Amino acid sequence: MSRTPERFSVNQMTVKQLSLPELVDACRDLGVRNVGLWREPVQAYGVDAAAKLVRDAGLAVTTLCRGGFLTAIDPRERADALADNRRAVEEAAALGTDTLVLVSGGLPAGSKDLRGARERIADALAELGPYAESHGVRLAIEPLHPMFAADRCVVSTLAQALDLAERFPAHQVGVTVDTYHIWWDDTAPAQIARAGAAGRIHTFQLADWTTPLPAGVLNGRGQIGDGSIDMREWKGYVEAAGYTGPIEVELFNEELWARDGREVLAETAARFARHAL
Amino acid sequence: MSRTPERFSVNQMTVKQLSLPELVDACRDLGVRNVGLWREPVQAYGVDAAAKLVRDAGLAVTTLCRGGFLTAIDPRERADALADNRRAVEEAAALGTDTLVLVSGGLPAGSKDLRGARERIADALAELGPYAESHGVRLAIEPLHPMFAADRCVVSTLAQALDLAERFPAHQVGVTVDTYHIWWDDTAPAQIARAGAAGRIHTFQLADWTTPLPAGVLNGRGQIGDGSIDMREWKGYVEAAGYTGPIEVELFNEELWARDGREVLAETAARFARHAL
Repeated sequence: MSRTPERFSVNQMTVKQLSLPELVDACRDLGVRNVGLWREPVQAYGVDAAAKLVRDAGLAVTTLCRGGFLTAIDPRERADALADNRRAVEEAAALGTDTLVLVSGGLPAGSKDLRGARERIADALAELGPYAESHGVRLAIEPLHPMFAADRCVVSTLAQALDLAERFPAHQVGVTVDTYHIWWDDTAPAQIARAGAAGRIHTFQLADWTTPLPAGVLNGRGQIGDGSIDMREWKGYVEAAGYTGPIEVELFNEELWARDGREVLAETAARFARHAL
Repeated sequence: MSRTPERFSVNQMTVKQLSLPELVDACRDLGVRNVGLWREPVQAYGVDAAAKLVRDAGLAVTTLCRGGFLTAIDPRERADALADNRRAVEEAAALGTDTLVLVSGGLPAGSKDLRGARERIADALAELGPYAESHGVRLAIEPLHPMFAADRCVVSTLAQALDLAERFPAHQVGVTVDTYHIWWDDTAPAQIARAGAAGRIHTFQLADWTTPLPAGVLNGRGQIGDGSIDMREWKGYVEAAGYTGPIEVELFNEELWARDGREVLAETAARFARHAL
C-alpha cells in the first residue's frame, strides 16, 4: 500500500467497470488516496451518498468531470446548458472537490464558425464563474485534442483555453492540462508556464498516445508507458510552473474496460510510478 | 466543360479508382486543367509515359505527392530515405511540376522525442533543398493534423512547418497549406500570412472535416461542403497572402473511392465551384 504514490489520482473513467463502492474499496486496498469522479455514475449512486462514501474512505476528490458543452446557439439549449452546469458546480461542492473540468462543446449542427462558438463559451463563463466561486469551485477549461474540434470541443490548445480563462479571475476559471491533448504542441510548454504563473493550472491529467486510433477516436487513450508521450517531461513543465497537486490518470480505453477493474487500477498506479515519478 | 473553374486541380488520390489514362480522359471530358499526382500510380504506369500522357492532354501537374518520411534515426534508413527523396525530386521534374509535397514522417519506433525528429527533418532538408533546386523543384512541407503526430508526421502546425522551411531559401523549401490539417488552428491565418510574405505557399489543398472519424483516421477526409470547414474563408487567407495558383482538392475517403470515379470527379469540381469560389 505504501508504494502507491501520494500524488496519484485515479480518474473514475479509467476503471469505469468498477461501481463507485468497488472503486472506493479498490482504492483503499491499493493505497490510492485520490479520485477524479464523473457526474453520471455519481448521480446514479446519489450525490450525497457518493460524497459520504468517498469522505468516509478518506479519499480526496481531485476533480469532477465534467461540465461544459456551452456552444449552443439556440436560446433554450443555452439556458439548459447553463442550468446543467450550475448543477455540476453544486455537485462538485457536495463532493468536496474544488475543481470542475469543462469540456467546452463542439460546433452546433451546420455551423462552421469556430470563433463564434469560442465566444459563446466566454459568455457562459461570465455567468458560471461567479456561481462556481460562490460554491468554492474553480472551473478548469480542458483543451481537447484538435481532432475533437468539430464534435466535442472547439477549444483545441492551451493557448486558446488561456485566452478564454484570462478574461476571468484565476480562482474562477483556469485550465486542465492533459498530456493526451497537448503532447504534439511545441508551444504548450510555454503555455503551461503562462498558466502556472497566473495560478490557473487547476488540474493535471495523464494519458498516453497510442495508435492506430479507434473509430470515433474517443476511446483510444493509452495506458501510461504504452505510447509516444514522455510523462516525466510534461510533469516537469507543470512542476516548473508551480503545480504540486495531484496527478490524475484518465484513460478511455475499451481494452482496459474489458479487463478486471482492480487489476487495471493496480497496473495504472504501477505505470504512474514507473513513468511519471 | 467551360464551367469547371480554371484554378481547380484534382489530386489523383481523390479518384484513385481511376487509372492514370482514365483520369486524364475524365479531366479532358470535364474541362479539368490541373492534376496533382502520386508517386506510386505514376511509377506503376512509368514516369516518362505518365509525363507524356498528361503533357499530351494539356494537363498541368500542380504537385507530386509525396516525398518525406525523414525522421529515421538508423543511418541506413536515413540514407535510403534521402535516396528515395532524390528520386521523388527527379520524378517531379520529369512530370513537369515544380512542387514536391513532403509528409515528414512520424516518431521512430520506441521514440518519444518530437523535437529530435523535427531536427532530423531539418538535417535532411539541408541535403534535399539544393538537390531539388537543381531540378527546378520546390519542397512543400505539409503540416499534418496533430492526430498524425506519432505515426505519420511530427510537423503538426503551419508554424512548425515554417520554422523548418525558413532555415532554407523559399525557392527550395516552402509549405503546403491544406484546410483539413489546419482548420482548427486559430493561429493558422497569421501563419499563412507569414508564409505568403516570404513566397513559401507552394501549394494550397482542400478537404473538409467530417465526423465521426474512421478507425486509423487516415481515410476520413470529407467531400468539400460536407463538413465543418469554411473553404471560402481559408481561400481568402491564402489569397490575401498573395497565393493565386491552382487549388487542389485531395480527399482520402473510402466512400468516394467505392463510387464511379468520373462521377466523383464531376461532383468534386461542382462542390469546388459551389463552396470555394
